[in-house]
Amino acid sequence: MTKTAVVFHSGYGHTQKVAQSVADGAHADLVAIDAEGNLTEAQWAILDAADAIIFGSPTYMGTVSWQFKKFADATSTRWYSRAWANKLAGGFTISANLSGDKLSTLQYLITLAMQNGMIWVGQDQLNDGHVNRLGSHSGVMGQVGPTDSADAIPQNDLDTAKAYGARVAQFAAKLKA
Amino acid sequence: MTKTAVVFHSGYGHTQKVAQSVADGAHADLVAIDAEGNLTEAQWAILDAADAIIFGSPTYMGTVSWQFKKFADATSTRWYSRAWANKLAGGFTISANLSGDKLSTLQYLITLAMQNGMIWVGQDQLNDGHVNRLGSHSGVMGQVGPTDSADAIPQNDLDTAKAYGARVAQFAAKLKA
Amino acid sequence: MTKTAVVFHSGYGHTQKVAQSVADGAHADLVAIDAEGNLTEAQWAILDAADAIIFGSPTYMGTVSWQFKKFADATSTRWYSRAWANKLAGGFTISANLSGDKLSTLQYLITLAMQNGMIWVGQDQLNDGHVNRLGSHSGVMGQVGPTDSADAIPQNDLDTAKAYGARVAQFAAKLKA
Amino acid sequence: MTKTAVVFHSGYGHTQKVAQSVADGAHADLVAIDAEGNLTEAQWAILDAADAIIFGSPTYMGTVSWQFKKFADATSTRWYSRAWANKLAGGFTISANLSGDKLSTLQYLITLAMQNGMIWVGQDQLNDGHVNRLGSHSGVMGQVGPTDSADAIPQNDLDTAKAYGARVAQFAAKLKA
Repeated sequence: MTKTAVVFHSGYGHTQKVAQSVADGAHADLVAIDAEGNLTEAQWAILDAADAIIFGSPTYMGTVSWQFKKFADATSTRWYSRAWANKLAGGFTISANLSGDKLSTLQYLITLAMQNGMIWVGQDQLNDGHVNRLGSHSGVMGQVGPTDSADAIPQNDLDTAKAYGARVAQFAAKLKA
Repeated sequence: MTKTAVVFHSGYGHTQKVAQSVADGAHADLVAIDAEGNLTEAQWAILDAADAIIFGSPTYMGTVSWQFKKFADATSTRWYSRAWANKLAGGFTISANLSGDKLSTLQYLITLAMQNGMIWVGQDQLNDGHVNRLGSHSGVMGQVGPTDSADAIPQNDLDTAKAYGARVAQFAAKLKA
Repeated sequence: MTKTAVVFHSGYGHTQKVAQSVADGAHADLVAIDAEGNLTEAQWAILDAADAIIFGSPTYMGTVSWQFKKFADATSTRWYSRAWANKLAGGFTISANLSGDKLSTLQYLITLAMQNGMIWVGQDQLNDGHVNRLGSHSGVMGQVGPTDSADAIPQNDLDTAKAYGARVAQFAAKLKA
Repeated sequence: MTKTAVVFHSGYGHTQKVAQSVADGAHADLVAIDAEGNLTEAQWAILDAADAIIFGSPTYMGTVSWQFKKFADATSTRWYSRAWANKLAGGFTISANLSGDKLSTLQYLITLAMQNGMIWVGQDQLNDGHVNRLGSHSGVMGQVGPTDSADAIPQNDLDTAKAYGARVAQFAAKLKA
């Protein structure tokens, strides 16, 4: 059986809500980076044991939050030992603008996965009115107004996130077979 | 007096419409790359004489159109001689999705400007309901549905483009003073 | 049995030499984009039938050559029909500078793969004195001086390319199993 | 008289050494981000008063260090008030590999500058054997082996950094005139 984990940082609950949808689709464990950018040893163990790791972060000032980056910097021990090489990877982000710099965040998540020798699975479905409202390919994008709560995230974005989680898990199973 | 030029490729008229708004704001000459990716000598002369050059392209398959890239490759003679060094530069793009990979296009336009030793002026205005509907910073983004004509481009996007043209021209005047 | 194809544009033979090494490692078919950016129908058929497609281009003025981009734009029919979705993808580039904008080229190749719903396999081996001389992760980078012929490409770069080809083919086999 | 500031994070002294060369060229104030990603109020005041701000960070795991990102996230108050709009900006990075993902770091520094409405000045000099050894355009790149101290940074890289600082300061003076 394959194991998938979703590791994310959420500042105000929006990224957490998207993370939950991704995890629902992937039947994944949720691993929340704390407000200081740290994980517990038990959380690291979940990531180390996973066949696929999906990264999630808000887009703050043009890329991942500093807390997510602190986590990313801490993967350098795995980088050095190639511990995560050949795992599957994916990613998602959310911000207040329709486009903004969300792509910059997804590009960085890809770069992080490549540094760790992982295989990247993107978002394959075209914008069809049901999913992929924002037209993203490199991973999942969500958007909600700057003063809106996580409850206001459009269902389309959450459905996109769930379908994407299922897709990553499906490839994890294929690669493990 | 400063001279500004807008050099662009347009496949179906959408990029041309945004280019016109940018040129209106900048009081700029419009330089259209043809369907084979070529400029005439007279068009190259306009660019060589300009204090500021604003680049425009649709986003096709994740970055500038091949016709725009053919133009970009042809700037290698200017690259080698540093002929465009210290000119101002800016850029814009339009595509069918709200986010999509428009940022990738703007990133490339910046990279092209940097290769040529130019100074990059981005889009400074925040999304306020009147301009910058898509929340772009690196340059101007426009968007209209995949089956819509150029006439359907939202006024907000065109106003954003015009204000941006004025901004680039203003900095060109400052640098020349 | 899995099929791998290497599709590339080469301006002066350098990219072709790296492509040959990648193809040697992957036991892949070589598909050369011509000087006008075109492929024959027979060449498209090879790509359509492949389990994995590895993209290669020189870095010209900060990203892929216009000929490669013309090919990329022509994949829009596959994009629309999702014909290449779930194929594996990888990529390589070469240029005259040690760093330069080679990463921009690899980032674009990833973006193209994501647009087409493909799965990206990067370069997993760390710089160890035998391979990955330039320290690339997102794909393979090669470098040789601006006046050097393809024969002057360092063996390290060619060995890196060959090992990378083998890696992509290995994952293609795993996914097909 | 124009004021230029160099704000940087250095993990092991390498980025600090490059920062010093940039500051020498620009006659700039050095503003060091501490090990927790923080600046003092006095340091923020230096940045707020500057005509040009040059950003510097090592490349860790594919982009700026988390400490630099914490600083970048803290500029969101300036983002919201547009306090840094129209200032000049530039950037530099250093890492252990010849290419690696240094361009990703420079791309992010540009994105940060664009978010803040700043004008970006890149590295204009071609690799001529005296400066720009690594062939960077978007900003300055330095490189030294993974076990080398800051004293081992090649003089070419430091000369590149110094000339770049002078260039940014020159444009700051032009814009202020």
